[in-house]
Amino acid sequence: MSSSPIGVVKRNITRADRATVDRLSGFGVATVHEAMGRLGLLKPYMRPIYTGAQLCGTAITVLLQPGDNWMLHVAAEQLQDGDVVIAACTTDCDDGFFGELLGTSFHARGARGLVIDGGVRDVKELTAMKFPVFSRAISARGTVKASLGSVNVPVVCAGALVQPGDVVIGDDDGVVIVPAAAAQRTADAAQARTDNEADKRARLATGALGLDLYNMREPLAKAGLQYID
Amino acid sequence: MSSSPIGVVKRNITRADRATVDRLSGFGVATVHEAMGRLGLLKPYMRPIYTGAQLCGTAITVLLQPGDNWMLHVAAEQLQDGDVVIAACTTDCDDGFFGELLGTSFHARGARGLVIDGGVRDVKELTAMKFPVFSRAISARGTVKASLGSVNVPVVCAGALVQPGDVVIGDDDGVVIVPAAAAQRTADAAQARTDNEADKRARLATGALGLDLYNMREPLAKAGLQYID
Amino acid sequence: MSSSPIGVVKRNITRADRATVDRLSGFGVATVHEAMGRLGLLKPYMRPIYTGAQLCGTAITVLLQPGDNWMLHVAAEQLQDGDVVIAACTTDCDDGFFGELLGTSFHARGARGLVIDGGVRDVKELTAMKFPVFSRAISARGTVKASLGSVNVPVVCAGALVQPGDVVIGDDDGVVIVPAAAAQRTADAAQARTDNEADKRARLATGALGLDLYNMREPLAKAGLQYID
Amino acid sequence: MSSSPIGVVKRNITRADRATVDRLSGFGVATVHEAMGRLGLLKPYMRPIYTGAQLCGTAITVLLQPGDNWMLHVAAEQLQDGDVVIAACTTDCDDGFFGELLGTSFHARGARGLVIDGGVRDVKELTAMKFPVFSRAISARGTVKASLGSVNVPVVCAGALVQPGDVVIGDDDGVVIVPAAAAQRTADAAQARTDNEADKRARLATGALGLDLYNMREPLAKAGLQYID
Amino acid sequence: MSSSPIGVVKRNITRADRATVDRLSGFGVATVHEAMGRLGLLKPYMRPIYTGAQLCGTAITVLLQPGDNWMLHVAAEQLQDGDVVIAACTTDCDDGFFGELLGTSFHARGARGLVIDGGVRDVKELTAMKFPVFSRAISARGTVKASLGSVNVPVVCAGALVQPGDVVIGDDDGVVIVPAAAAQRTADAAQARTDNEADKRARLATGALGLDLYNMREPLAKAGLQYID
Amino acid sequence: MSSSPIGVVKRNITRADRATVDRLSGFGVATVHEAMGRLGLLKPYMRPIYTGAQLCGTAITVLLQPGDNWMLHVAAEQLQDGDVVIAACTTDCDDGFFGELLGTSFHARGARGLVIDGGVRDVKELTAMKFPVFSRAISARGTVKASLGSVNVPVVCAGALVQPGDVVIGDDDGVVIVPAAAAQRTADAAQARTDNEADKRARLATGALGLDLYNMREPLAKAGLQYID
Repeated sequence: MSSSPIGVVKRNITRADRATVDRLSGFGVATVHEAMGRLGLLKPYMRPIYTGAQLCGTAITVLLQPGDNWMLHVAAEQLQDGDVVIAACTTDCDDGFFGELLGTSFHARGARGLVIDGGVRDVKELTAMKFPVFSRAISARGTVKASLGSVNVPVVCAGALVQPGDVVIGDDDGVVIVPAAAAQRTADAAQARTDNEADKRARLATGALGLDLYNMREPLAKAGLQYID
Repeated sequence: MSSSPIGVVKRNITRADRATVDRLSGFGVATVHEAMGRLGLLKPYMRPIYTGAQLCGTAITVLLQPGDNWMLHVAAEQLQDGDVVIAACTTDCDDGFFGELLGTSFHARGARGLVIDGGVRDVKELTAMKFPVFSRAISARGTVKASLGSVNVPVVCAGALVQPGDVVIGDDDGVVIVPAAAAQRTADAAQARTDNEADKRARLATGALGLDLYNMREPLAKAGLQYID
Repeated sequence: MSSSPIGVVKRNITRADRATVDRLSGFGVATVHEAMGRLGLLKPYMRPIYTGAQLCGTAITVLLQPGDNWMLHVAAEQLQDGDVVIAACTTDCDDGFFGELLGTSFHARGARGLVIDGGVRDVKELTAMKFPVFSRAISARGTVKASLGSVNVPVVCAGALVQPGDVVIGDDDGVVIVPAAAAQRTADAAQARTDNEADKRARLATGALGLDLYNMREPLAKAGLQYID
Repeated sequence: MSSSPIGVVKRNITRADRATVDRLSGFGVATVHEAMGRLGLLKPYMRPIYTGAQLCGTAITVLLQPGDNWMLHVAAEQLQDGDVVIAACTTDCDDGFFGELLGTSFHARGARGLVIDGGVRDVKELTAMKFPVFSRAISARGTVKASLGSVNVPVVCAGALVQPGDVVIGDDDGVVIVPAAAAQRTADAAQARTDNEADKRARLATGALGLDLYNMREPLAKAGLQYID
Repeated sequence: MSSSPIGVVKRNITRADRATVDRLSGFGVATVHEAMGRLGLLKPYMRPIYTGAQLCGTAITVLLQPGDNWMLHVAAEQLQDGDVVIAACTTDCDDGFFGELLGTSFHARGARGLVIDGGVRDVKELTAMKFPVFSRAISARGTVKASLGSVNVPVVCAGALVQPGDVVIGDDDGVVIVPAAAAQRTADAAQARTDNEADKRARLATGALGLDLYNMREPLAKAGLQYID
Repeated sequence: MSSSPIGVVKRNITRADRATVDRLSGFGVATVHEAMGRLGLLKPYMRPIYTGAQLCGTAITVLLQPGDNWMLHVAAEQLQDGDVVIAACTTDCDDGFFGELLGTSFHARGARGLVIDGGVRDVKELTAMKFPVFSRAISARGTVKASLGSVNVPVVCAGALVQPGDVVIGDDDGVVIVPAAAAQRTADAAQARTDNEADKRARLATGALGLDLYNMREPLAKAGLQYID
C-alpha cells in the first residue's frame, strides 16, 4: 500500500528465512546491492555510529513522530532473536530517539541492531556494548513519549521501502534492504559475484588491467575514446 | 513489494476514479495532507518551478537512472488524459532530466504536470506554457538516453511511496500522494475539514482567539503553563 | 540568561518605542544591519514566502517544540497592534507550524507579520492576504498541539538572540533584530548612512569609481596590489 | 595554470568576439550547454535573484576573500561595455558582497550583470534596476575592504573554470561559460540545435512520441525493456 | 542584551563554581541535557575532531570574524585553569581558525578544550595532544589576523546562547551549555537521573520491557494504539 | 583552457619533479596550503575514508560521468609509480565509483592513493589495504561503464583546478594541489614555515602568549580593541 497507517502494531509478520539471512550476513552491503540489481540501498547519509559496525537481520519496522520515541518501546516487545529494528520518521528530525537504555532493552530482546532515519545518543556506551546502530545524526537531545506511530507497517526509511520481515544489512558502506521474497536468489547472486571477484582480484593484484580483464578496449574505441600524446 | 524491478513497463494500471480526482483537485495540499491523517507528503525540498503551479491527476510512475531521461520518453506513451508523471531516480541527481520538448510531448498526450525527484530545465518556456512542474532542482545540464529504468512500478519519490494510479496533488505548499483506494474517503474528509474551517476563519477574523475556539485553556493549564507578569 | 525556561508566558514586556519603530520601518534590512555595526542578522536561510514581503514591529517571542504549534495560539493573545511574532524551535524542524487560520488570527490581533525558524503552509492564501512571513521552509505538513514551549522569553532564532520587545525588521534581503535599547541610535545611524549613500549613488551613476570615491588606491597599493598588462 | 595568484590585476585581456557574443545571447543556457558537449555549467545552486534575469557578456573575473568585497571595486575600473563580472571566493561565504551602489557603478561602466559564488543584497533595488545577478545566496550582511584578491586571473566559480574574456551566459536555467576560443563553434552548434528542435517541437505538439521521433524502440528492446500488462 | 558588541574584551567574569563544574564533568552530555529540561544543546553539526573527545569547563566566549582568528589569540590571555574556549563567528565560515600552535598555547594557559562554530586544522597533532576540540568543520585553510571581534561577551554558538563563565560540556553526543546560575541544580538533577537509570538498566538487561517499567500500556491504549495479527 | 574535452586520454604528461614531491610529502596539508599563499585547497567536504589516511603524489586526472566509472579503468593504464588519481565528475554524484578491486589494481600499478569528488565503497577493505582515499561520500551503490569521460585533462575537483602532473597532498586536514611549476618554491616555503613554527611552539608551550610573540598588542589597540573590567 502507498501509505502506512498510524496507530497500528502488527504482531504476526513473515520473516525472511533464517538460514538465508545467515548466508546473506556473510556478504558486504556493496556486494548485496549489486546482487540485487542495484536496488534497495538507503541514502548515503545513513552512517554507522562507530567504525566497523555491522548488522544483518529481519526487519521490525517502526514509524516514529518527530521528537517522540514512544513506538521504539512498543517495538521492543515485538522483537525476536535475529531481528533488526528499522525506524522511519514522519518528518525529518535529528533528535536522539535512541540511547543506551533502549539499546540494553533491544539487545536483551534479541535485536541485532538498529537502523534509524533520525538521531541517536549515548554513542560511547552503545559502542562499548558493540550494539550496531546506523543513523542520520548523533544528538544528545532526547525525545518525548506522546504521539502514536506504528510498528510493522511498510515504511520508507532514508529513501528505501521496507516491509516487516525484509532482510536489513548494514556495514561501513551503508545499509541495504533485501525483500524477504528475494533473499534466496540475492544470496545466490552475491555468492556468484564473490566467487567471480576472487579471480579478478588476484589478476589485478599482479598488475593486469581492467581494460583487458573486462574487454573494454573495443567498446571504448567504438564510443570514440581518443588517445593523444 | 519492497524494491521495484528495472527494465519493466506496466501498461495496464488501475487509476483512481476520475470523479474523485476532480473533487480532490478542489482542495489544497495542506488540507488533503491533514485529511489523510498527515501521511503521504513528499519532502519539502520539492518545489514548484513557478509560483502558483498546481496539479492534480493520476500517477504514471517512472524510475530513472542518474543523468538519464530515457524512461521519460517511454512514459509519454503510457499517458492518458488526466495523468501526472511522477519520477524517482535510483540515486540523488540534480541534472535537468526534463525540458520544453518533453513538456510539449507530455502536454499533447494529456498530462497535467510532472513531479520529479531530480532537476529540470527550460523553466522560462515551461512557465510560459503553464505546464506545472515540481522538482528538487533546476539545472541546464541535460541527460543521456542509455540506461533502462522502469515505468508504472512502485517508486519512492522524495520520501513518499507512490503506486501507479495514485492521486498526485501539488501546489505552492508541496506535493501529496493519495492512494487510489483512499481517494474517496480523503475527499470526504477534506470537504469536512474545509467546511469546519470556514466558520473558524470568520470568528478568528473578528479577533476571537484559538485559545477559546479550540478550548485550549484547560489543557494548557493542566500541562503546567504559567503566566507571569 | 543563557537558557529560556519552558512553560512560561510573560505578559508584561517592554516594547521598543513606537515612534522609533516607525522610523526604522523606513530603512531596508541591509542598511539597518550596517547601522547596527553588522550585528543582529538572522542566518540567510530565512526567506520571505513571497517576493516583496516586508515587516517591521516589536517582537513577541515564541519557543516551539518540533512539530507542535500550540504556543503560537498562546502568543496570539499577547499580541498588540504593531507586534511581530518571532518563533524559534527547540530543534530544527521544517513542518508547517503556521497557515492561513493563524494568519487570520494574528492579523486580527494586530500582528504585522511572522518570522519563524521552521516551516509554514497556505503560502497562496497568506500571499493573497499580504501577511508577511519569513521562514526556513515551506511545508504542507501540519503540527499537533501537545507540548509546552514558552512566550516572551529570550529565544535564539536562526542564530540571532531576540528579546521580547526588540525590533524585528524583514525584507527581501533577510531579517535583522534591533535591541529595544539600541533602536534610537540605530535609526539615527541608518538615516546618516542613507543620506550619505544618496550622494555616492549619484556619482557612481555617472561612472565615477568607488576606487576614487572611497580613496582606495593608496591602501590597495600599500597592500601590494599589482597591475599587469 | 592551476592556481591563481593573489594581489594581481590584469588589465589587457582578450575578449571573445563581440559579434559572436551577440549571437550567443540569443540562445538559452540549456541550449548552449548542450552545444558545448555538456561542459562549462556552474553548479545549480547558482540562481538568479529575480525571475527572468538574463545576461550574456565577456568575463571580467574576480577572486574575492571571504567577507571582503574590495576587489569588486577594483574590477569596476576594468569593465568595458558588454562585460559581465564573474566572482569567485577563496572559501565558501554567503555574505552580501554586492548591492545597489556597486550595481549602479557596474551598470554605469557598461557591465551586463554579475555572477558571484557568494551572497548579494539590495535585491529589491537591483530588481527594480533590472540589473541581472546570479548568486549562491542572498544576505543583508555586508563586507569589509581589507584583503587583496585578484582581477582577471583564471578562477573557479561554482565548480567551473573561467578565464577572463570567456563568454558568460545566464538565464532561469543557470549559468554556463563558453571559452572565448570555442565561442564561434558553440554559436554554430547552438543554432543547429535550435533549428532541429523547432521541427521536433511541432511534431511532439501533435502527439507524436519521442519513442518514434528519436527511433528509440529498437535500442530499448535491445537493452531488454519488457512491457507487461 | 540581544547583540554583542564588537571590539571588546571583558576581563572580569564570574565563573561557575569549580566544585560544581567538577561534579558536572562526571555526567554525559545527554544526561545533563535532560537534567536541564532539554535546553542548552548546540546543534548536532558540532562534532568532536576525534572519537572520545571530552571536555567540561567554564566558558571564555569569543566572537570571531569570518576567516580571521585574531580574537583567539586575545582570548588566550584571558584563560584560567579549567576554562573552555567557546567561539562563535559573525557569519558561517568553515575555515581552519585553530590548529596545533594555538592548541599548545591554550593548553599551556590552562584551557580544557575548544568549541568552535567554524573549522579547525592540525587534527592529527591535536589528537596526539589529546586536546579536545568540537567544531563544525575540518579545514586546512588558515585565517588572517585583521578584524576585531570580542572576548567574553554573550555569543550565540551553533544555536545556543553562551555567557562567559557558563559551564560547557562536550562528549561524543554533542555539546551542552549550563548557565552558571543553573549549574548546581543541574548537577543535582543529573545525579538523580543517573541513580534512577541504573535500576532501569538492570531490569531492561533481563528482558523487562519499557512498556511495563514506564507503565505505558494504558496511555498507549487510551491514545488508540491497535494491535492486529 | 576553460573546459576540458570529453573522450580524450592524454598519455604523455609532465609530472612534478620526484625529489620535490618527496620533500613535499614531509609536510602537512595545512603547512603546504599556507606555503602556497592559501591557494589550492579542495573544499572541506572532502574527507579521508579512515583516520590517518595520507597521500602525496603526482596527479593523474580523471573526468567521470555521473554513476559511471569507466574512465577509472582507463586511468589505471596511465599510472606510474608515485602517481595519485584525482577524479572529478561532470555533475554532483555520491555513487560508489571506486572499491576494493580498483584499489587493488591502482595499488598494483603504483598509485599512492585516490582523491575523488564522488562516492566510494569497500571502505573496510580499502582501510585494511591502507590504500588512502579522500572522497565526498561513502556509498555502496556501484556504477556502470557506459559513458566516456577523459583522462589527464585539466579538471575542477571539489572547487580546485588540477592539471595532470600537479602534486596532490592529502591528510586528516584535507587535500591541497600544488602546481608542478610551484612545487619547489612551495617546498622551500613550507620548510621555512616549519622551522619558524618549532620555535614558536616551544615558547607557546611555556605559556608565552601569541599576543606578544606576534606583536599583536599595538595593532589590536590601533584597531580599537577595548579591555573592560
